[in-house]
Amino acid sequence: MAPATVTIANGATWQDVAADRQRYRDTTISEVHPPVPELSLEERPLNTTAIPKKFLTEEEIEVTGTDVEELVKKIASGEWTSTAVATAFLRRAGLAQKLANCITELLPKKALTRAAELDQYLATYKKPIGPLHGVPISVKEHMGFKGEDANAGFVGWVGQVPEEDSLILQYLWNSGAVFYARTTQPQTLMHLETSSNLYGATVNPHNTTLTAGGSSGGEGALVALRGSILGIGSDIGGSIRSPAANNGVFGYKPTCLRLPSDGWAVAMHGAESILGTTGPLSTSLEGLRLFSKVIVDQKPWLRQPSLTAMDWKSSAEFFPDRKLRVGVIYSDNVVRPHPPILRALTELVAKLKQSSNIEVVDWNPWKHDLAWSIIASLYFADGGADVKAAIASSGEPWLPLSKFILLDNPHVKEHTIASLWEAVSAREEYRTKYAQLWNETARSSPEGRPIDVILCPTGFGVAPKLETSRYWGYTSQWNLLDYPAIVFPVADRVDAPEREKPFEYPEDYKPIGEEDKYVYDLWRQNGAEGYKDAPISLQLVGRRNHDEQLFKAMQILLEEAGLPAAVPA
Amino acid sequence: MAPATVTIANGATWQDVAADRQRYRDTTISEVHPPVPELSLEERPLNTTAIPKKFLTEEEIEVTGTDVEELVKKIASGEWTSTAVATAFLRRAGLAQKLANCITELLPKKALTRAAELDQYLATYKKPIGPLHGVPISVKEHMGFKGEDANAGFVGWVGQVPEEDSLILQYLWNSGAVFYARTTQPQTLMHLETSSNLYGATVNPHNTTLTAGGSSGGEGALVALRGSILGIGSDIGGSIRSPAANNGVFGYKPTCLRLPSDGWAVAMHGAESILGTTGPLSTSLEGLRLFSKVIVDQKPWLRQPSLTAMDWKSSAEFFPDRKLRVGVIYSDNVVRPHPPILRALTELVAKLKQSSNIEVVDWNPWKHDLAWSIIASLYFADGGADVKAAIASSGEPWLPLSKFILLDNPHVKEHTIASLWEAVSAREEYRTKYAQLWNETARSSPEGRPIDVILCPTGFGVAPKLETSRYWGYTSQWNLLDYPAIVFPVADRVDAPEREKPFEYPEDYKPIGEEDKYVYDLWRQNGAEGYKDAPISLQLVGRRNHDEQLFKAMQILLEEAGLPAAVPA
Repeated sequence: MAPATVTIANGATWQDVAADRQRYRDTTISEVHPPVPELSLEERPLNTTAIPKKFLTEEEIEVTGTDVEELVKKIASGEWTSTAVATAFLRRAGLAQKLANCITELLPKKALTRAAELDQYLATYKKPIGPLHGVPISVKEHMGFKGEDANAGFVGWVGQVPEEDSLILQYLWNSGAVFYARTTQPQTLMHLETSSNLYGATVNPHNTTLTAGGSSGGEGALVALRGSILGIGSDIGGSIRSPAANNGVFGYKPTCLRLPSDGWAVAMHGAESILGTTGPLSTSLEGLRLFSKVIVDQKPWLRQPSLTAMDWKSSAEFFPDRKLRVGVIYSDNVVRPHPPILRALTELVAKLKQSSNIEVVDWNPWKHDLAWSIIASLYFADGGADVKAAIASSGEPWLPLSKFILLDNPHVKEHTIASLWEAVSAREEYRTKYAQLWNETARSSPEGRPIDVILCPTGFGVAPKLETSRYWGYTSQWNLLDYPAIVFPVADRVDAPEREKPFEYPEDYKPIGEEDKYVYDLWRQNGAEGYKDAPISLQLVGRRNHDEQLFKAMQILLEEAGLPAAVPA
Repeated sequence: MAPATVTIANGATWQDVAADRQRYRDTTISEVHPPVPELSLEERPLNTTAIPKKFLTEEEIEVTGTDVEELVKKIASGEWTSTAVATAFLRRAGLAQKLANCITELLPKKALTRAAELDQYLATYKKPIGPLHGVPISVKEHMGFKGEDANAGFVGWVGQVPEEDSLILQYLWNSGAVFYARTTQPQTLMHLETSSNLYGATVNPHNTTLTAGGSSGGEGALVALRGSILGIGSDIGGSIRSPAANNGVFGYKPTCLRLPSDGWAVAMHGAESILGTTGPLSTSLEGLRLFSKVIVDQKPWLRQPSLTAMDWKSSAEFFPDRKLRVGVIYSDNVVRPHPPILRALTELVAKLKQSSNIEVVDWNPWKHDLAWSIIASLYFADGGADVKAAIASSGEPWLPLSKFILLDNPHVKEHTIASLWEAVSAREEYRTKYAQLWNETARSSPEGRPIDVILCPTGFGVAPKLETSRYWGYTSQWNLLDYPAIVFPVADRVDAPEREKPFEYPEDYKPIGEEDKYVYDLWRQNGAEGYKDAPISLQLVGRRNHDEQLFKAMQILLEEAGLPAAVPA
């Protein structure tokens, strides 16, 4: 397929461009064989997660039901071919599009050509080409892809076609990955949902009245439907963690500059006061780890010099013979989480307290409102000029959540160099203070050890209703601090309202402030029934550049709590 | 001693403030016992390096003639007390002030109190308090020092007194260091010399008509006179390396964010497009390494979160059984180095080519003029407003090299946020290109290995005449790239003019451009005689965050070339 020719530069309207992009997407799906079945409306209930299995072969169900760490073995041993695997995921991803609107295009020709080459390689050399031999990886659209559109959610950018793959794709390719699907993202990339004028809204497969989250919401929904078991997202305020949490899958926001970001299509190129990071979403914890290790093992800092030259450490070396110390945040004191989150957190902590391998301590969140004011003043240091120009370039309308984060955000201002430096100094002061508080937790430990990780909500609730994801604090907090974080499902979901009773807001609840009132009102309006079937997820946070320790802590925590380290197929 | 009370805020003129600072300095020197001898003018020849020995006791000469790695053993074993060591360095530093004008104040009371405590500790516990037990460390003035002035070279800032030590001092203190001397720096901290309206010019002990370099020129001169064997400098464009080279001592500019910088007094707080770094100057290579390791071993990233959480690696693991590949830059193609530098480089390379452990390859410098234009456009992103305000606050005059780097610098502009982002993008593009070229050197290696380090000049010549240090490219290049670098003396100096003959400019030399013409004219005016006795030094550069590899490479290079790893006492 050639890239789009219907563009603003060619004189088309934004509606024309969007329509053409959707046609193009549908065409790529129609090229999958055997064909992706059409779905009637009746075949799309509120909870769509069980649908794909009705339309796939038994082998396809088994293949797409396998997590990364098992899949690599099956392919390396020759039990499954890369071609069969790619075909299964292409078909399931095609179905996912029809259920959740999460795909910008499939890449059947490229994927199957690649898969055939990998099969040939294995046949010839009797060994895999690399540690991800044959693993299909889905990719958020704005990761530059050679010869394919890179619009980053802006209609006016349609027609930008990179001359080479973004760096992270190159490393994954070297490891044997098969790229087969590209996924949706919101206008500006700065929503915790996924809605654009190009593709409309991506919805949550567990409950289609809810958002898939964002900005990597295409990935989140696709992985939830197992149209992917490993996908690439990016995160500057929650964009990996929100969709991972909303869709009940695993997501990992690394410390910035561990994984390559060269070759992204983004606005505000050169901004560095707050960095975004690439990171994986997966059906398994091990999928996240393997993804990261495979890339870091290739020493990406030798090609993207801004990256930290730090090898991926074996997790085995951490906490070998001592208790894990876990700090817990129930509320950030700005917005009280909805009852299902408080319930999950409370139940999990109760389990952890039973463990002889874990010590739980409370963590008192220090001025998370200040943290938000700092990061929000740094997101658009040019006052949003670059983003405004990108939207204006096509005449496309501003979407509500773009307005929310930029136009209606009281912290956004056009900085001078002097005021930028002031804001950066405030950022560093905040980071230093938080580190000091972390260090001081050693005082409550007989061995003088500070906490290892923080356990906390990923958002104010489970997946919000569309257009209501208007509080970022539970994720952006860790972007400001540049702390790595893993989102994990607690294998539970919102169902019977009476389960939430013990964690309901008190009758006479007085909201803490405006943001809390908004969130409180959402719960009053929707209640447990409004969020039915939404998965419940939590977040585990480590110190900056302590990513490998975080993975080990996550593994211990899941084991001790009796939670699965993978999403059931 | 109480901090200064004569300040601009108190209504004094800049001249009053400067005079008071000098009186204060002299008072602190006068408090050393036994007293620091007065020197007559006749006792200050052009080359002053032999003078201190005439005025010190034999024991003092031996103590101050000992390098860090030996000194720690002598103190730990009880052979020398910390008190005796501190006294010897206080006296020699006092002499150094009279010879090179390198001191802003001595700290006899604090140092001797500390030394007595350390002696007591050793007597009580029979072990040193830390790996630097009793080691006197000199400190560039702008490293915040609790209870002492922190003026960063601006008259208007005199009277600023930090409430706590800068972070690096805290880590060194924890390791057993004794702080006894604070050293000069230039107005703005942005000269490759050391001249301020507070203290005048620091001169080169080897030839007092030459500059000590800068901005850590106080350290450079003090270490050259062995008034210190280990000092703390800082470097954003050459400020550690220029004084190390000019004074013939060892200097190390780490990759940024390996060593703490919290607590510096500097203009443009919050600027991060080009970072400066703390780093050591020493009489020995091992002094540099020990300094760095001792700090990094304390995990400073837990307190200054911007630092890279990377342990100090043992050098033993690098290049164990293969040749070191060294790229060589003779000229950066912008400014041809003066004959002594070309001679030293040529002679050293000839020796290295004899070694079976080293492979030498040419490195073609890629657009170092572009590199300068990028870094120079980022040094003062506010167009210099903050620095201008700091100078204006006292009415002190602009010094020539302040004008040179800011007012007369064609690359300085007041950035908007958009133009700042453009310049940052240009910086990253340049870094990426340079990394790519480095990677491509693997093509000329049978084993497919790129070069390990680059060997190059540290400046256009040996120590320049005062006020002529007007080309930064040989050092600022590695700040733009954030590559670590070690400066080392080649155990040679400028002496007989005929030695330089083979490396003289050709009769019909056509300067490459304006900067080259300026440098060429300097040589024509001064010749070898003008630079008599100036030490010759070179620079070894590693890849970003490959600091430990660089140390190992430096060690191999010195061994193979038969050069000493320490300055003769």
